Amino acid sequence: VREDDVVAAIRAIVEPAGAAKKLILGIGDDAALWQPSRSHRSAITTDALVEGVHFSRDLMSLYDAGWRAIAANASDLAAMGARPVLATVALGVPLEADEAAIVELYRGIAAAAATAGLTIAGGDLTRAPALTIAIAAVGEVRASNVKTRSGGRPGQVLAVTGALGAARAGLAVARDPGALSGELGAAALAAFRRPQARCAEGQFLAASRNVEAMMDLSDGLSTDLARLCEASGCGALLSAVPVSESARAVASGRSEDPEQFALAGGEDFELLVAVRPRAFDYLAGRFALRFGRPLHRLGALREGSGIAFVRDGREEPVARTGWDHFEPAEARA
Amino acid sequence: VREDDVVAAIRAIVEPAGAAKKLILGIGDDAALWQPSRSHRSAITTDALVEGVHFSRDLMSLYDAGWRAIAANASDLAAMGARPVLATVALGVPLEADEAAIVELYRGIAAAAATAGLTIAGGDLTRAPALTIAIAAVGEVRASNVKTRSGGRPGQVLAVTGALGAARAGLAVARDPGALSGELGAAALAAFRRPQARCAEGQFLAASRNVEAMMDLSDGLSTDLARLCEASGCGALLSAVPVSESARAVASGRSEDPEQFALAGGEDFELLVAVRPRAFDYLAGRFALRFGRPLHRLGALREGSGIAFVRDGREEPVARTGWDHFEPAEARA
Repeated sequence: VREDDVVAAIRAIVEPAGAAKKLILGIGDDAALWQPSRSHRSAITTDALVEGVHFSRDLMSLYDAGWRAIAANASDLAAMGARPVLATVALGVPLEADEAAIVELYRGIAAAAATAGLTIAGGDLTRAPALTIAIAAVGEVRASNVKTRSGGRPGQVLAVTGALGAARAGLAVARDPGALSGELGAAALAAFRRPQARCAEGQFLAASRNVEAMMDLSDGLSTDLARLCEASGCGALLSAVPVSESARAVASGRSEDPEQFALAGGEDFELLVAVRPRAFDYLAGRFALRFGRPLHRLGALREGSGIAFVRDGREEPVARTGWDHFEPAEARA
Repeated sequence: VREDDVVAAIRAIVEPAGAAKKLILGIGDDAALWQPSRSHRSAITTDALVEGVHFSRDLMSLYDAGWRAIAANASDLAAMGARPVLATVALGVPLEADEAAIVELYRGIAAAAATAGLTIAGGDLTRAPALTIAIAAVGEVRASNVKTRSGGRPGQVLAVTGALGAARAGLAVARDPGALSGELGAAALAAFRRPQARCAEGQFLAASRNVEAMMDLSDGLSTDLARLCEASGCGALLSAVPVSESARAVASGRSEDPEQFALAGGEDFELLVAVRPRAFDYLAGRFALRFGRPLHRLGALREGSGIAFVRDGREEPVARTGWDHFEPAEARA
């Protein structure tokens, strides 16, 4: 049972049940959009972290787990170009957890929320067999700035807001501190334990009418780009994959291909955009001025379907090697 | 560790972290309120159901579990006087669950959502050790109609939108079908498995300026009224507890006091209101005309703290005997 298949079955049940006039964009994008008043769009997203599936306490603290839960939701809002407003937290806590553990988790939640600009507006607390953090986050976006996954068209330039693979490298370092030491090791751990949602970047890119599609990279570029291509009805040809220094170091230590390592790395939370080709250089220049980092050109969308990567003049097909959160935890690395 | 104590600790962490100007009402009420534009208030709530804690498949179907998860959230919106708009669903699914199980659960979610007027706007699907349904629901309410738990004052009349104890009676029948047979047994099971959130009643009561406080009864009148009293800084004297016929029958079969049985019964999802005393008869008359059911008078708020129940001219203290979702499941009945 693949996550995307179950989601399709769920859509078939849920969509006929109530097509609210106010709902602009429903299941299948990073967040749903509705219209509380004529001039406003609100975005809502939900994302849950489960201990033993998404995190384990031998690899990160509960503070980090709370941080990541907020960051994942803030990133979904960033992908819609929305300004984060508030979040609710439904917490499932095992019997053996004490108040100190809940407090540590909430400190991480509060810190990440403050960084993203999210106010914790409410919550639910219950017993559960595994620590479960289910968050829903609401943001706001101008109607004219809304970007979805389905706006991609052949010819548009694909780009990402940062180098990839650092979170996956950090997971490797958390498992085996010998995998990468020094500053690069610390940077990888930080990328894994305290990811930064690209909220400011998302609002900046959403404000440009030359950005035609946007999504966040939560399950790895190979998986998420395939979703953007599917939603946009086209294929993609990659000519460069920006690999973070730490990912390159971990991959070479394992004698793995660094680009493949980065393509499969989940939870980088960088934003993936499709940009009108003539406007790309101008947009990338403004992006670099504003954020002090490049907007990395990956390649372009094209007719057809599927993703390929050009290396040494040859096209290699790119398989969906990223994370499927519906797979058993053991299947992931 | 009591749920309300942990919530207090969480508030202390979360509230200084970001006091959004747009947030009107934060943690501690049935739902949080924010202000997407000057004329609008949006309400958001979250509530999670965990298999083995809130439901078990020998007592209800997965369809029922999905229904109840939506009903609990819709009821929180009803308690704010809000019109339900949309919901997100974060579903945690054990490895052994197949697609048919997820589909059945979602059918219950979709049916309850359609009944409440909620559009399912998005979701998240993940593996989890126990089936977990974490829902966030958004509604809208006119600024002038907002009712909270803290508006109660001594002298106001306390009332509920329906007789109590039916859901608890239904739990007893689900466990032992011999506890109550026939139509009453079926009604009790329906109250337990397919509770109805009082959304229309909530909007009606919220529109009256004579209603000063409102909340929904999810954990039992004895627990929830204590929360309203605490938030409003007063006590309460009950003179009548409306007991549903099925609850009366199950209680008498167990030789239990029917009022005590109903006071402790959770998940009735009726609304509890505090009403200006002079306006009560007029409001109750309009309520009965509109809904074909009485607005049951319970008693009144008074100076001081704590809840008492007058029987045969004597005041008996009422202990918090309702459900604390943070207690282990075995502690509940």
